[in-house]
Amino acid sequence: MARETVSEQLIRPLVRTLQPYVPGEQPRVKGLIKLNTNENPYPPSPRVLEAVRAAVDGRLRLYPDPTAERLRDKLARLHGCDPDQILVGNGADEVLRLAVHTFVEPLAAQRGPLSRRYLVPPAPATVQSFVPSYSLYPVLAAQHGAAFNPVPLQMEFALPEAGQLKHLKQWQPQAALTIITTPNAPSGRGYATRDIENICARTRGVLLLDETYADFAPENALALALKHPHVIVCRSFSKAYSLCFLRIGYAVGPKPLIQAMHKLRDSYNVNGLAQVAAEATLDDLAYYRENFRKIIETREWTTRQLQQLGFLVLPSQTNFILTRPPGPPAGDWYAQFRQNNILVRWFDTPELSPYLRITIGTPKDMETLVRVAKRLLR
Amino acid sequence: MARETVSEQLIRPLVRTLQPYVPGEQPRVKGLIKLNTNENPYPPSPRVLEAVRAAVDGRLRLYPDPTAERLRDKLARLHGCDPDQILVGNGADEVLRLAVHTFVEPLAAQRGPLSRRYLVPPAPATVQSFVPSYSLYPVLAAQHGAAFNPVPLQMEFALPEAGQLKHLKQWQPQAALTIITTPNAPSGRGYATRDIENICARTRGVLLLDETYADFAPENALALALKHPHVIVCRSFSKAYSLCFLRIGYAVGPKPLIQAMHKLRDSYNVNGLAQVAAEATLDDLAYYRENFRKIIETREWTTRQLQQLGFLVLPSQTNFILTRPPGPPAGDWYAQFRQNNILVRWFDTPELSPYLRITIGTPKDMETLVRVAKRLLR
Repeated sequence: MARETVSEQLIRPLVRTLQPYVPGEQPRVKGLIKLNTNENPYPPSPRVLEAVRAAVDGRLRLYPDPTAERLRDKLARLHGCDPDQILVGNGADEVLRLAVHTFVEPLAAQRGPLSRRYLVPPAPATVQSFVPSYSLYPVLAAQHGAAFNPVPLQMEFALPEAGQLKHLKQWQPQAALTIITTPNAPSGRGYATRDIENICARTRGVLLLDETYADFAPENALALALKHPHVIVCRSFSKAYSLCFLRIGYAVGPKPLIQAMHKLRDSYNVNGLAQVAAEATLDDLAYYRENFRKIIETREWTTRQLQQLGFLVLPSQTNFILTRPPGPPAGDWYAQFRQNNILVRWFDTPELSPYLRITIGTPKDMETLVRVAKRLLR
Repeated sequence: MARETVSEQLIRPLVRTLQPYVPGEQPRVKGLIKLNTNENPYPPSPRVLEAVRAAVDGRLRLYPDPTAERLRDKLARLHGCDPDQILVGNGADEVLRLAVHTFVEPLAAQRGPLSRRYLVPPAPATVQSFVPSYSLYPVLAAQHGAAFNPVPLQMEFALPEAGQLKHLKQWQPQAALTIITTPNAPSGRGYATRDIENICARTRGVLLLDETYADFAPENALALALKHPHVIVCRSFSKAYSLCFLRIGYAVGPKPLIQAMHKLRDSYNVNGLAQVAAEATLDDLAYYRENFRKIIETREWTTRQLQQLGFLVLPSQTNFILTRPPGPPAGDWYAQFRQNNILVRWFDTPELSPYLRITIGTPKDMETLVRVAKRLLR
């Protein structure tokens, strides 16, 4: 038997058939205007860069704080909660994975040698989210061997009203974990905390609010994580705080849920320089608030410009817009932009293929985008 | 019902009962001689520090390379293999976790609502390791809901000879994942590649060689991972390369096994500055080889000194020693060293409680240790 075949047989059947998550392209092309993965166009604050540089010395030989205590203390003060209600992760992706592993029973045996035992996936084994949203959620469920239950959003990516839920045959109130992306990605649409709280009252499992983009929105639902026994909010330093490179996200929620997630994380999951950077970030929030203001202003300017060119632009409460371009298919626009050194995101799925998702860059980036769009329309 | 009680019920039964791994203390006490978690006493090379500092700028706003391509290329050249045979992790702990999740079926249902289905854990659900070794392994198995099968090492922490294995009732040749820590921790004992290869021939699941300390040993077994379809070697930049703070480890092995592990990792699992630091490290290996030489010299000096004081010191091929102190119980020695501002590791388990594990620090650190030991003996 070939060596490769022997190896293959040692892999869990679940993993063998798994389709991994495909992140957006991260090309390092000089002069490329990169508007495809919702990175912040502004650098971290000078004080953050200074703090990180100052930490780069012989101390790199030592383990970081495995509990990220100073950072959790600062986050607890920011959000008015106890540090034990906070978990820091190696990016928000780790936080999401830990939530799946902590609250959802795996049914890995389904496809493995112990198969045919589960004909209908029971609700404790289900991750549920509204779709379209972050395409990582079904991958996390699949990696864990759990079922994924997609609940379609309403027209124009609206959340169903709480009263509608019981009429939605896809909705499972007892799903072990329900995720709401708020504001939504990839549409950019924001949701009222009141509407989320109504859904919350109809959810019997854990409700995770993925607030990656909340800093660009007029309101957020963090208060719900401090009030309800089953609600967790997940945040990230990547996009709003210009720290994608360092991988740092966190969860806020009821102490028992957060402590249970802690039990499953790797002991030194957050690298030391990320902890330093995140702490320094929280000491300089005014710098970032000014960035949010600028990005929102640029978003509104870009929206108006594209609308004048015949683009349909969905209202956004994030640092990106979802837009349906006029004329040729969106896939062609994507390719044309790329030829002009502008990288945007195009999702080749039935729901999203008519759209482009465009990150808000600097005013100059967006002027270039609008100029190229004008030229392409001619 | 109290809010906390409602929360508790949302946690998987497996996680509720889980005992988390307890890492060694990471106190930040001025003047403390920290010899408890096997950190390297020497800083990273000046070129590594320079490379990391130079990367701390506006680019922190961008995502790191999700595939760590440049680093995998360099590691592949170093080890004479294909970059697709390498996986980089957020510390070696992540690599170990991924191996458990990729090759071992979970039996989480055992303790959950689907219980009573598995009376005897089948081998596909078993992680096996020789004990004592890294106490994280049973925790990783428990987190995943897999069985853990401890196989006792022989006298003085020797591996069983391959011929003995079939007489060891604990040995399961068909365990989905067997881990050998080589050199062993916490004993420091090294193993001959020949002996490991003999065990390898009697292992039907995946065999993972945890070579965290291999750089301090006269030989390593990396060649086995390039030769056998079921062998993976795991390495770390933490201890040998003074980069604990940045969390970076990797696995080398057959392409199908490594690619399967890739499917389960978070897409941006390795932070960007860790990638930069590890790449620069590989460009300056001469600096680190000199550190290995110094640490080995200090280890041998410390061993002789402690032996003269009546300590039993096990021969070590790592950057630490396991030693049985004379006179009072080891726990008392631990406390006395601590009072003298020297932190060593004491494991309160039946097998290990007669010993102290002492990391090799600088010559000055070890002179202080020996001087304090002498004083305590009087």
